Amino acid sequence: MEWKGEHAVRIGELSRRTGVSVPTIKFYVREGLLPAGRLTSPNQAAYEETHVRRLRLIRALIDVGGMSVAAVGEVIAAVDDPDRPLHDLLGEAARRIGPHSDEGASGGEPSGGEDEDEGGGLGSAEARKRVETLIDERGWRCRTESPASQALAVALTALDSVGHGRFAEVLDVYADAAEQVARVDLEYVAHHVAREDLVESVAVGTVLGDALFSALRRLAHIDASDRLFGGGAE
Amino acid sequence: MEWKGEHAVRIGELSRRTGVSVPTIKFYVREGLLPAGRLTSPNQAAYEETHVRRLRLIRALIDVGGMSVAAVGEVIAAVDDPDRPLHDLLGEAARRIGPHSDEGASGGEPSGGEDEDEGGGLGSAEARKRVETLIDERGWRCRTESPASQALAVALTALDSVGHGRFAEVLDVYADAAEQVARVDLEYVAHHVAREDLVESVAVGTVLGDALFSALRRLAHIDASDRLFGGGAE
Repeated sequence: MEWKGEHAVRIGELSRRTGVSVPTIKFYVREGLLPAGRLTSPNQAAYEETHVRRLRLIRALIDVGGMSVAAVGEVIAAVDDPDRPLHDLLGEAARRIGPHSDEGASGGEPSGGEDEDEGGGLGSAEARKRVETLIDERGWRCRTESPASQALAVALTALDSVGHGRFAEVLDVYADAAEQVARVDLEYVAHHVAREDLVESVAVGTVLGDALFSALRRLAHIDASDRLFGGGAE
Repeated sequence: MEWKGEHAVRIGELSRRTGVSVPTIKFYVREGLLPAGRLTSPNQAAYEETHVRRLRLIRALIDVGGMSVAAVGEVIAAVDDPDRPLHDLLGEAARRIGPHSDEGASGGEPSGGEDEDEGGGLGSAEARKRVETLIDERGWRCRTESPASQALAVALTALDSVGHGRFAEVLDVYADAAEQVARVDLEYVAHHVAREDLVESVAVGTVLGDALFSALRRLAHIDASDRLFGGGAE
């Protein structure tokens, strides 16, 4: 982190510029998500533009992505490690993102809540086979043991378990849509992102892109549902 | 809930059939997510096929959707209420789903964590305007104050805040993809879902559809990233 004394601010100003409270900023420093400020006196630290940027990244991942502090910490460790090969870093960023990365998301259950049920873990053998076939047919260069493949198998297994196994028949429409979106995602990265910002951008893009799509899908549902069942706008 | 004595099972068998542990089943009953079994003796209750189905719904929403127990409770209250107009129910189901419905997702922060920062709440005025324009241009019949519109504005604001405001230029590709997916979602519902199962199916479909798309987008990313940056499959 470079030191540019002329832009340094105190924690109160950092809080005002990011909208993150002072106790929360201190908490992120303790948890290792945010580097400590440079001590300018025993009780005072100075913060840089990089702290502003890092805080905005943290809040985007938590507020929009619904990620836990622990999961954000792992993404940030990947962002800060200059020694890992690029493709591994992209995999790491993607692996840490999503509901399954967030151990706290199903909170509130007794300790018996972590069952090895049919919906968790790897998904059913049949669902895994379906994922393998889909990847084959599309010629996607990704291993069937990747976390994303597992997440897909788990979602298909859950659909089966609630009696909507037939929904998998429309999987190709989903896959087409995902390809279109992934294509523009990568074009954006290739054209607008510097190599040193790549991992951060992939983390942000994965989380915020999911949030964008999810919100747009709901809006399109409201529209379609209104046309089918409604009377007047929602 | 109908009583069909010949199919009733004890809690141990219910646990085996669903993979959900006995303490977790009892927890869901206490929290009002699952109706209690019919008492057949002071210490023993009998459970039905409807309990199996309800447990699978709960686990799909929690395990795949990453929803909190409280958020699942609200979806189930909507599913169980026969008096609400259909379109409202669909709105309710959609409103309760997603990271913003899950108060526990950003857990682990001190109480100061709930800031009114620029990334939270309603999104920036500029982002809200952009959402309004998008809805107008697409002719979507949905109000700009709907929770999905707000979620979209929040995601766009977060993109701005981390320096990726230009990503909004590809929003139309996302919206096209969302329309395609929403169309098959609704076609599936219209053809394969009985009216009394509609709300449950919308809740499941919203959560599991997001999970499907998210996993497929990651797979398509891995493929595209491998072609751009990689050497060999991930």
